[in-house]
Amino acid sequence: MLRLDDLQNGYFIWQDPAMFCFGVDAVLLAHYPALKKHDRILDMGTGFAPVPLILEAENKKRSLGAHITGLEIQERAAEIAQKSVDYNRVGEDIRILTGDIRTAPETMGAASFTLITCNPPYMAAEDGIIGSDEARAIARTEMKCTLHDVVSSAGRLLVPGGRFAMIHRPFRIPEIFSEMQKAGLSPKRMRLVYPYADAEPSMVLVEAVRGGRPYLRCGAPLVIYNRDRSYTDEILDIYGRK
Amino acid sequence: MLRLDDLQNGYFIWQDPAMFCFGVDAVLLAHYPALKKHDRILDMGTGFAPVPLILEAENKKRSLGAHITGLEIQERAAEIAQKSVDYNRVGEDIRILTGDIRTAPETMGAASFTLITCNPPYMAAEDGIIGSDEARAIARTEMKCTLHDVVSSAGRLLVPGGRFAMIHRPFRIPEIFSEMQKAGLSPKRMRLVYPYADAEPSMVLVEAVRGGRPYLRCGAPLVIYNRDRSYTDEILDIYGRK
Repeated sequence: MLRLDDLQNGYFIWQDPAMFCFGVDAVLLAHYPALKKHDRILDMGTGFAPVPLILEAENKKRSLGAHITGLEIQERAAEIAQKSVDYNRVGEDIRILTGDIRTAPETMGAASFTLITCNPPYMAAEDGIIGSDEARAIARTEMKCTLHDVVSSAGRLLVPGGRFAMIHRPFRIPEIFSEMQKAGLSPKRMRLVYPYADAEPSMVLVEAVRGGRPYLRCGAPLVIYNRDRSYTDEILDIYGRK
Repeated sequence: MLRLDDLQNGYFIWQDPAMFCFGVDAVLLAHYPALKKHDRILDMGTGFAPVPLILEAENKKRSLGAHITGLEIQERAAEIAQKSVDYNRVGEDIRILTGDIRTAPETMGAASFTLITCNPPYMAAEDGIIGSDEARAIARTEMKCTLHDVVSSAGRLLVPGGRFAMIHRPFRIPEIFSEMQKAGLSPKRMRLVYPYADAEPSMVLVEAVRGGRPYLRCGAPLVIYNRDRSYTDEILDIYGRK
């Protein structure tokens, strides 16, 4: 059964909760890179396309003339993503493709994008809890694509100077940087996401540039909850509820 | 002219402010690794030996039977460090050596230590502001030893399973992890140090283990100042003033 959720940015998103639902990760990722005029954007592993729909709101608001592609390996998820694109009438700016991140550089063409976003599966296939629920397992564990696959495809799909923005688990930061280096991507920005101001970080946002000089700028802590479990001002701002 | 400062842990430290003075970096570094019984510790680039003197307080307090070596390339700094060791009568536990980090694995012997600490020069030699002041320049820029030198020597000087704790600038995190990987060190713990709760981090603490499985545990934000510029409770605790 499908559910229609309000993204609170003018758009709505269809989701199938029996498969998976997007989380705060996708929202934080979509707000991390600074969009530029005429960006050609690829969201790898787009799921129900929350990232394209959030980027599109920014694109429209600032009249950037960007174009966004959402690539998803699961046919059913891609169909639902397309349903949201149609529902929101943003088919001119967003296209949804069913396909594999691993072969994307061949199928979509090298150096085709100026910005790539990705909220990949976090867990190595052997670490993840794989139940009978295949749709969720594909989204969460590296069954269909590893961190290496994601980063190396991004390196090939980006134009020189193009940006790659990813959200991931902090425990994989060394591997993320190592894969980026191999893929010709220089990490430029990083921000740790802490559930509470005094807790260990649960996520990391990273942006790298294809080519360029290695100099990492780390941002202020991104804290999700206040002590009383209400959202912090920054999160309310990101969710457009402030 | 030498100055005697109270470390507030039972020990005093001689410093020559005309050369340099230790900062909060050394204090944070000295508190980062968990000491173990009979640790054989090396502090690389020890300066006036603040790190050995802080570690020694912990060593004594917990009766760990650890031994600490401070290695310093600048003869004058090593002399002043020795003066503090004598002043505090800790010569049984701390030895100060004049020597070069780059040749330390040969001179001191491979796999000689169970814990290595290092507060290295932060700036690449070409980036640093090198004035007429050579002592300070050697301490702050990579004139005499690069990040690569520090990490590769640490990898060789540690026993398998030995820990390497370092403080550095966040902009060099990708390079730190890359060098660690080359040196056979697995990053295990990382903590970003933020001057204020809403500011970009100014320092990063990292601990790696020689060998071992790569899994990085990131700690809660370490914030130095409250909004009113007073020290946070955690910093007061580290400085022993709480």
